[in-house]
Amino acid sequence: MAITVVGSVAYDTIETPAGKRERCLGGAATYFSLSASFFTDVRVIAVVGEDFGKRQEAVFKARKIDTRGIEHTAGKSFFWEGSYLENLNEAKTHNTELNVFAAFEPKIPAAYSDSEFLFLANIDPVLQRRVREQMPGVKLAAGDTMNYWIKDHRPALLEVLKGLDILLINDTEAKMLAGSNNLVQAARAVMALGPKTLVVKQGEYGATLFHATTPKDKGAELRVAALPLEDVVDPTGAGDSFAGGFFGYLAAQTEISPAVYRRAMFYGSVMGSFACERFGTERVQALTRKEIDDRFNRLRELTHLG
Amino acid sequence: MAITVVGSVAYDTIETPAGKRERCLGGAATYFSLSASFFTDVRVIAVVGEDFGKRQEAVFKARKIDTRGIEHTAGKSFFWEGSYLENLNEAKTHNTELNVFAAFEPKIPAAYSDSEFLFLANIDPVLQRRVREQMPGVKLAAGDTMNYWIKDHRPALLEVLKGLDILLINDTEAKMLAGSNNLVQAARAVMALGPKTLVVKQGEYGATLFHATTPKDKGAELRVAALPLEDVVDPTGAGDSFAGGFFGYLAAQTEISPAVYRRAMFYGSVMGSFACERFGTERVQALTRKEIDDRFNRLRELTHLG
Repeated sequence: MAITVVGSVAYDTIETPAGKRERCLGGAATYFSLSASFFTDVRVIAVVGEDFGKRQEAVFKARKIDTRGIEHTAGKSFFWEGSYLENLNEAKTHNTELNVFAAFEPKIPAAYSDSEFLFLANIDPVLQRRVREQMPGVKLAAGDTMNYWIKDHRPALLEVLKGLDILLINDTEAKMLAGSNNLVQAARAVMALGPKTLVVKQGEYGATLFHATTPKDKGAELRVAALPLEDVVDPTGAGDSFAGGFFGYLAAQTEISPAVYRRAMFYGSVMGSFACERFGTERVQALTRKEIDDRFNRLRELTHLG
Repeated sequence: MAITVVGSVAYDTIETPAGKRERCLGGAATYFSLSASFFTDVRVIAVVGEDFGKRQEAVFKARKIDTRGIEHTAGKSFFWEGSYLENLNEAKTHNTELNVFAAFEPKIPAAYSDSEFLFLANIDPVLQRRVREQMPGVKLAAGDTMNYWIKDHRPALLEVLKGLDILLINDTEAKMLAGSNNLVQAARAVMALGPKTLVVKQGEYGATLFHATTPKDKGAELRVAALPLEDVVDPTGAGDSFAGGFFGYLAAQTEISPAVYRRAMFYGSVMGSFACERFGTERVQALTRKEIDDRFNRLRELTHLG
């Protein structure tokens, strides 16, 4: 079933120990869409400026992603500049320019209205909420956020959380949101804010799945490892690619069972690992479904008893 | 088959967010022995001072650990004081007093000489080497070390590594030893120094197993998660308890296959998780084999596809 995703479609300037790239196509909705497109139909809602042209559009089209919800407007696209020179696990932000996103009023194309899955990628929670309100009938709503919104826009974020079935955030963000340094306690506190399912992304260590229904003494429902990579070229978008694999796999299933959630976590980890292997969206753009399934099997071998 | 272990038997003063304990029984060899004793026979080589009495001895005896190799001498036992107030993943050392360990000349009791498994717990590599040289015929030799020896006693440590089949160290230590920030590259560099198998302990995230024979594109052989714990009371000894579970399980098997290594990693993670639940050795002392196997099954559920 189709996923509608709202989030940034942007340009990124990225420096890592492997080199530097100027203004590559990026943004949470871009990474999410490309990743999820290997599993199901994806429809994007975003805004771009005059610097977004045919070449960028073609990246989406090549993966059959519906771009009718990408609004073109005067001005420049969202821009982010960051580096990972000291720590590949955490970006150092040098510059963020909202540009056309500053005045964005998300509109859902009529053709998107039958989407049963909604993903609110990391963006101003005010925008996330507007999109959520326009799609009240979705079967499953998931979303992401980041430290900036948790710290400085908490009331707006709390409104968003009430409307989410699944929240995917990283380790430090989960602890920050909950005000607890213990992951199990933090997870419980976060799920009390709305989402009945929480996916905590832990970078090079993998991710942990919590359901509000998991018995207390189990701690968590599932932990999936990240594949140890010999060359991490650029971790930008790894979390969004994880989310795309996870939610894309869920959306493609006829029924969402505990076993489906487990497989979704493994697909999330697989897609996150690919994202790190080249700059920007390069690696995920060029993937095949066979490569994805081969890596899924490798991840199973890496984590399962014989 | 029996394991001989050399390492510290000590007193620890520990402060964590859960409280403070003065002079509890600790030391790498203590934690290792207690943990391994649930799987196989364990024989300890260490030195203690006049402050080590019947009550401490009884902790080993209750687990049927052979203490004939614990030398009693004039003076005070090894003492360590540390805290985990800001970060439960890393101890801040306030004080280390070698005391009787400063002049220790390890001697192997005749009754230990048929041990087929040898574990060199974290201690001066000069002592590790002396023990290794006195037990040339062991089937499998494993060991641990720490940042202090890697930084300031590298030549002695490199001699020890040449005589090890398996090295178990933590994440930052593996990277420090190899001079690489990438775990896969670091693992390969460490295994080039001697050990054909490397276990990298990653605290609350689990551990990763590398074999020198693992194909390069696989990255690692196995990753095991750590159980997410709701209450981490005291992480002291978790790494040594991991090593005890891992090596104890290996030593108890008639044949050491890749599948056995996998199960050993899971048992290591299980024992490490118990160690954190109470101060010092309290939790591991009080364990039953049934609790261990129940948690092993829980760890499998936590990490496996349905």
